[in-house]
Parts: sequence; C-alpha cells; structure tokens
Amino acid sequence: MRKVILAVGLSLDGYIARPDGAIDFLFMPKDCSMASLFAAVDTAIMGRKSLEAGLKMGGGSLPKTHMMVYVFSRSQLPGEKDGFTYVNESPASFVTKLRKRRGKDIWLMGGGELAREFLKADLIDELHLGIVPVLLGGGIPLFPSGFPQRNFALIENKSYLQGMISLKYKSTRAKSDRTH
Amino acid sequence: MRKVILAVGLSLDGYIARPDGAIDFLFMPKDCSMASLFAAVDTAIMGRKSLEAGLKMGGGSLPKTHMMVYVFSRSQLPGEKDGFTYVNESPASFVTKLRKRRGKDIWLMGGGELAREFLKADLIDELHLGIVPVLLGGGIPLFPSGFPQRNFALIENKSYLQGMISLKYKSTRAKSDRTH
Repeated sequence: MRKVILAVGLSLDGYIARPDGAIDFLFMPKDCSMASLFAAVDTAIMGRKSLEAGLKMGGGSLPKTHMMVYVFSRSQLPGEKDGFTYVNESPASFVTKLRKRRGKDIWLMGGGELAREFLKADLIDELHLGIVPVLLGGGIPLFPSGFPQRNFALIENKSYLQGMISLKYKSTRAKSDRTH
Repeated sequence: MRKVILAVGLSLDGYIARPDGAIDFLFMPKDCSMASLFAAVDTAIMGRKSLEAGLKMGGGSLPKTHMMVYVFSRSQLPGEKDGFTYVNESPASFVTKLRKRRGKDIWLMGGGELAREFLKADLIDELHLGIVPVLLGGGIPLFPSGFPQRNFALIENKSYLQGMISLKYKSTRAKSDRTH
C-alpha cells in the first residue's frame, strides 16, 4: 500500500518555520541527500498556508517537480489552479482514494495544522525528520497539540555535517504492521 | 567551569509529561545508562512544579541522592525544607554563585518553565535529551516558546533499544566555547 510519509526539516524545539514563516534556520548538509525520498514518492500534499509560505520564500514560484501536488484548503475552490490541485475534503477520505490508485508513496510536506489532521485520522505511516541544532524559542510547530497518542518505531537515526540529524520512524499501529 | 546540563527524557513531540504530569510514556532502555551523568554532576536544579509532580509519582518521596537539590519557587520561602533547598532569585544570579563554588556539573532536571528561564538568561551549556518514539499530542513542553534563539552543536547521537535516542548538544555561544 502507498505509504504517507511526513518528511520535514525542523528545529530542535519542534518548529518548521519562524513565527513569520521564514525557514532560514533550516539547512541541508553536504553529506545528506533527499534523493531517496524523491525516488520513493510521486505525490505531495501540503496545507494552503504552507504553500503560501513556500511561494513567498520562493519569490512566487516553487521548484519544478514531476510530483502531483495537492493543497488542502478550506478557502480555495477544489480543483487545479497554477499547477496545484486544491482539495477540500477530509484527509481520511482523500487518502483512502489516493491509496486505491496505483502509485508511489505520498509525501506530506506540512504544515503543522495539516499534520495534526493527519495524526487525528491516524494516516501517517512514516516520519522522516531532519532536525537542526537550534532552539528557536517560537514559531510554527510541526506537532501542534490536539491529536491522540501515536506510537512509532525508530527505523533510522543518522548524524550529518553541521549537527543535523535525520530520524526515520514508522507507525506501530496494527494496520501499518500488516501493510509494510 | 561548572557546566549547566539540561538532561531530560521527552516525547518526540517535545513533552516531558502528559497534561496531568504523568511520565508513564518515558522509559530507560536496558542498554542505556545514566551513570555518566550521575558521575558528572553533584547538584540538581528543578522547578517547584516538577518537584511536586515527581513527589506525586514517587508516592511522596524521591529516590535518595547525594546531590544538592535546589528547587526554584516563587511561592515557597527560600531555604532548606524536607531535604530540598528552595531558591527564590533569578536563575542568572543563582547560577553565577553556584559556578563560583567548586564542584561538579549542575543538572537542570526541568521543567519547561524553568528551562525557558534558563534559556532566556543563556545559562544552559549542554542539552542531553532522551527521546522516546511516541507522539503524545499534548502535555507539558520541555521548550515552551518565549526565549531568544539559542544555537547548539551536536556532540553525540546514539540509538538504544525500543527506539529511544540520546542526543547531546553543547551551546555554541562564545562564552561556552571559552569554558569548555
């Protein structure tokens, strides 16, 4: 079954962005690569606020990609627009439909509010976290409170240059055990 | 110089306790030991709420220790009581005095509110974090927001049984670089 992978960079105190959306504190060490993630997925999902923050950082555009990019939004009409496909339905029903289609894994890119909705519905199969060695003291949390406890198993823990660590976990829910 | 080490266990989403103070989700893997920490420190500091949570969990007492245990409190009178020494002054002035005395390193045991005060005053030299593979979805955060950015360097990253990881960081502030 297609896995949903929450893969993001964050600070040691759990923030994916500063309060104003800036992600200048994140970095990709030379000895680290996202190639295996890019090879494993063909679909990306993000929240509308994360898209807008990304567009702001990218000067109005995002890097070109061959992935299908779905943007969850309650304010935009569902459907294609500017290369993204807007979605306005529950993560559970949407992911169920995606999983019925053939395809590679699904990259949940953020942000925190969408991650919370996915965790509420227990839709996350793996966490891939790149943690940089800084405490921001405030910002947009990856895991805002308000979902039930979810248990994971560590599948990888590596250290990279400049003190970034990469952690990979898989969900230990029974369903996930059957489908991995 | 005597280092201040914030050493605690926490969930992957950054909580040192559940909303009610329970720490049942934390565990110490068989292949992991706190012996090197215990050997390095002779003084412990905690917040009054953490002490009370610890006493509640411990049935009214804490494990016997040879450490000096200081409890920061705004509500208790300063001085010794029940084997603890209550402190009601700024972390900066107290730590300055402690550092002038000869002794081993100082273990900041929590909780989050006290960690924030220590981070505000830039008093933390090392972080030793034992992270268990669970998302709680709510609780008492180790790093509540409200302090300036603090940068660290990774000095150790190890994986243990049952997916616990142990991370050690040291502050990269100039003063710390001089004194390490």
